[in-house]
Amino acid sequence: MYRTHNCGELRIQDKGKKVKLAGWVQKIRKLGGMTFVDLRDRYGITQLTIDEKADRQLVQTVESLGREFVIQITGDVAERMSKNPKIATGEIEIILENVKILNASELPPFTIEDDTDGGDELRMKFRYLDLRRTPLRQALELRHTMAHEVRKYMDSQKFLEIETPYLIKSTPEGARDFIVPSRIHPGEFYALPQSPQTFKQILMVAGYDRYFQIVRCFRDEDLRADRQPEFTQIDCEMSFVEQNDILQTFEGLAKHLFKTVLGIDFTEDFPRMSYNDAMNFYGCDKPDIRFDMKITDITDSVKGNGFSVFDSAACIGAIVAGKCAEYTRKQLDELTDWVKRPQIGAKGLIYIKLNNDGIKSSVDKFYNSDELQAIADKTGAKTGDLILILAGERKITLAGLCALRLEMGNRLNLRNDKIFKPLWVIDFPLFEYDEETKRYYAMHHPFTSPVPEDLHKLESNPADVRANAYDFVVNGVEIGGGSIRIHDSQIQRTMFKVLGFTPEEAEKQFGFIINAFRYGAPPHGGIAFGFDRWCAIFGGSDSIRDYIAFPKNNSGKDVMIDSPSTVNSEQLEELGIKLISKI
Amino acid sequence: MYRTHNCGELRIQDKGKKVKLAGWVQKIRKLGGMTFVDLRDRYGITQLTIDEKADRQLVQTVESLGREFVIQITGDVAERMSKNPKIATGEIEIILENVKILNASELPPFTIEDDTDGGDELRMKFRYLDLRRTPLRQALELRHTMAHEVRKYMDSQKFLEIETPYLIKSTPEGARDFIVPSRIHPGEFYALPQSPQTFKQILMVAGYDRYFQIVRCFRDEDLRADRQPEFTQIDCEMSFVEQNDILQTFEGLAKHLFKTVLGIDFTEDFPRMSYNDAMNFYGCDKPDIRFDMKITDITDSVKGNGFSVFDSAACIGAIVAGKCAEYTRKQLDELTDWVKRPQIGAKGLIYIKLNNDGIKSSVDKFYNSDELQAIADKTGAKTGDLILILAGERKITLAGLCALRLEMGNRLNLRNDKIFKPLWVIDFPLFEYDEETKRYYAMHHPFTSPVPEDLHKLESNPADVRANAYDFVVNGVEIGGGSIRIHDSQIQRTMFKVLGFTPEEAEKQFGFIINAFRYGAPPHGGIAFGFDRWCAIFGGSDSIRDYIAFPKNNSGKDVMIDSPSTVNSEQLEELGIKLISKI
Repeated sequence: MYRTHNCGELRIQDKGKKVKLAGWVQKIRKLGGMTFVDLRDRYGITQLTIDEKADRQLVQTVESLGREFVIQITGDVAERMSKNPKIATGEIEIILENVKILNASELPPFTIEDDTDGGDELRMKFRYLDLRRTPLRQALELRHTMAHEVRKYMDSQKFLEIETPYLIKSTPEGARDFIVPSRIHPGEFYALPQSPQTFKQILMVAGYDRYFQIVRCFRDEDLRADRQPEFTQIDCEMSFVEQNDILQTFEGLAKHLFKTVLGIDFTEDFPRMSYNDAMNFYGCDKPDIRFDMKITDITDSVKGNGFSVFDSAACIGAIVAGKCAEYTRKQLDELTDWVKRPQIGAKGLIYIKLNNDGIKSSVDKFYNSDELQAIADKTGAKTGDLILILAGERKITLAGLCALRLEMGNRLNLRNDKIFKPLWVIDFPLFEYDEETKRYYAMHHPFTSPVPEDLHKLESNPADVRANAYDFVVNGVEIGGGSIRIHDSQIQRTMFKVLGFTPEEAEKQFGFIINAFRYGAPPHGGIAFGFDRWCAIFGGSDSIRDYIAFPKNNSGKDVMIDSPSTVNSEQLEELGIKLISKI
Repeated sequence: MYRTHNCGELRIQDKGKKVKLAGWVQKIRKLGGMTFVDLRDRYGITQLTIDEKADRQLVQTVESLGREFVIQITGDVAERMSKNPKIATGEIEIILENVKILNASELPPFTIEDDTDGGDELRMKFRYLDLRRTPLRQALELRHTMAHEVRKYMDSQKFLEIETPYLIKSTPEGARDFIVPSRIHPGEFYALPQSPQTFKQILMVAGYDRYFQIVRCFRDEDLRADRQPEFTQIDCEMSFVEQNDILQTFEGLAKHLFKTVLGIDFTEDFPRMSYNDAMNFYGCDKPDIRFDMKITDITDSVKGNGFSVFDSAACIGAIVAGKCAEYTRKQLDELTDWVKRPQIGAKGLIYIKLNNDGIKSSVDKFYNSDELQAIADKTGAKTGDLILILAGERKITLAGLCALRLEMGNRLNLRNDKIFKPLWVIDFPLFEYDEETKRYYAMHHPFTSPVPEDLHKLESNPADVRANAYDFVVNGVEIGGGSIRIHDSQIQRTMFKVLGFTPEEAEKQFGFIINAFRYGAPPHGGIAFGFDRWCAIFGGSDSIRDYIAFPKNNSGKDVMIDSPSTVNSEQLEELGIKLISKI
């Protein structure tokens, strides 16, 4: 027994007790003939004190301590003279009787405080020190609690957690697989799963009715910020369900998590928004509905006044920034530069200011006050508001308006990360048409079913068919998505046909699941949630990296363990492979 | 809503209700003008009935059904004429009103019954059909429950489940790693973890105090029966603990599982047995203590009578098979052949029968009745018992006696798989000496600490040093094992020295963890349990394969998805590797 208590649990009620504690030295300070040591562990901080006139040996040991030393102490719990209301143990301190150094520590390369002075790469290299900081510890505690509550809810709903294999088979469709050479079968490879999609459908065919798994997935993509080559998914599938059954079940999961993890009660149903409405009103399929500021399409209202930017535009949209009519020239120029950045790609930004003393606009030359007022009326803007307008090709304009809206939301403090606005986005298109290859692609995947009402158009007008698919969105972030799958082999054949597969090609790529479907596949559907991201959202953070104990950096490297790294040639030879020598 | 109820929940109290069910056709039979259909889902079986004189269309649909068709039905709950007490729904049946075929099924290649007629490979290929069988479904349900209860207990004990990475670094020590070529860093490789050992120790350095994870591990070994290249571990680590703290914590876990999963209450502490006692009395370090039949060492009692097999043996051991004195010549010959198989490798088997009419033995020539009786007395054998003796080199003899004891336990029905006898085996040797390479190897791993009392012998007499390590054994199966780790860098240096590492070699192989230990490593220790095997033991089975949803076969292949398989050369080229062409 190294300790009788942890560093977070002693209270004024424990006054007078003799205790044994163990932990890390957070801080040492001297004041008025006393030395104070903050002793830290996962559970909290407890103050240790010693009078400089105490036992000399003991005083010397305390003086030899450095930051992050691991020590074991005994002493008596006493009431503090000056209490610290900020910490749970703030009313007491331990009068030191004995100190044992369990392990010394070298000086850490950065300070272990809430706000550290360490740079990103340094903190990644010494991740074990970074993980000692309270914000990271709280992030991993939150993640533990989330996972535990997910499992409690899913178990209560009769879902079975079933582990699917990690060494599976490479498929040419979709993102790139990580592959794993087989030694026993040289020249052959396993692949790491991008998701357990086929296995969960197989489990439905096998009659498991309700499956879930918190599972690692792998994607060998060119890394963008905040993408990880390995990530964790809450993967779910149900049989004998329609879309509404799935939405209700997983709305239940989300509400359970909001309630048990954050203490937030959602009594109303989450809103459901069609893909078209999301695109038209928010410019994207994952709207942040914490604030309104909807896009107004003014394309038809503003053409024909000789302003060529508008006249030639396929799409003209406006948002209203409330009470921003006082924006200065400089502020507007800055916003204009912001939308012109390559990430947004707008040609320019048009504004209309509804000042107290009249309307002002960057297109005064083409529109008189009445015409500007008519536009303002259409957008619902009031005196004191600022209207921001983008125009151009539809896709780029909507994306630009979406980004601009979020940016204005940030500037106007409308995106409080303690407020959560979840919603379902539904009625996605089933297909995307690719101009380059002149073919349709499945927006979700080739097993996604059409909504029943659109089934008759599957061959005649595929572009118009809606998918029986849904996304779960919180505060502008897509947390999850899924679909009702096709279980009818006739519809599946038509689907492959529309996607341009011959029966032979379909068989080659999806053979084993098509085969499984021959033996009594039930109607089924499912959803998968990005667990890292869900944790980050709940923690009020944009960065998933803080919610992963040992993340990779932007080039897919784990700099702490120095991986990936070279292996010896005997190992490769055993696997039947060799490196392609560089020129 | 495809159903109002599942196939396992209707009872006599539901009589008269109109219900909607969905599921698979298990069986159809006709009897006295009635047709009976057993409808199956994960939750149970419900009987559907229809009079042949009912609506013609409906009768025709029912007649068109085949095994494993997926159907949706409506009908009225009625009381059965002849009740089936074997199933929970056995008092009721559904009078069919409507039947809709949701999906037809081809004839399955084997019968979906508790005892199937399918061979191993066929069942693996059609795993989705095999998984429909009740024993496999129950195995996966048990696994779900076990995992859930593990997490509940660990959470209650303040353990945090923390996910460690799957793409890590290859290390030359230990078993072979599976490696994963990196595309972004051509010529470099990740490795899949054999266990999260270093990461969990790093988490202790990071102050996480109590960590666990149910986690997949990978080992590229030559496969033996019932070994899987990927397997699941319950991985655990604690800080500021001594051996007894760990044993008590995880004895708590085991008791919680016995109680909640199997309904078995263990009120007493599990026995703790030293490695030496386990070897001496049971011939192995994982004794099955469901039955006694301990080994008696008779080496010193039987030498010197001119029987060369005994006189030249380093070790002579006996077990007593109770009430087996009546074994026939044929039975004894068969047992002799059994111990002579290469797996056991004994030279022969000596017996002493304690018949009612006197003592008989295969070594009558060398030992008179009194001498045989003296041996019998030493072993504690009584009239009616059979003494079985093996002799030879110590290691082989003990292994042989262990195997023979288990075999006799089976023959005498002493190994009931509903009875569980857990124990801890402790005080393992810290090192094994390898005659071939003339060096010591760590029996557990190089971070395992010696027991404190033996620390002074670490350099002077390493062979005699006991490890602060422990195994958890149930019914002769090792379920888990772990150790208290070294946290003192001086002891670690000595350890590496005894293992024959230069400081440079140690740094190269274990650098990043040695570095981490410089910044305040707490005393810590842990344990890992083989989850697949624990599930199998609880399920009363020897085969872990039934407790894994999608296992690989004995050559590491997933025959359902046909993996591993070839990948195209562009994919390899992107990774900077190529196949070594075969000659």
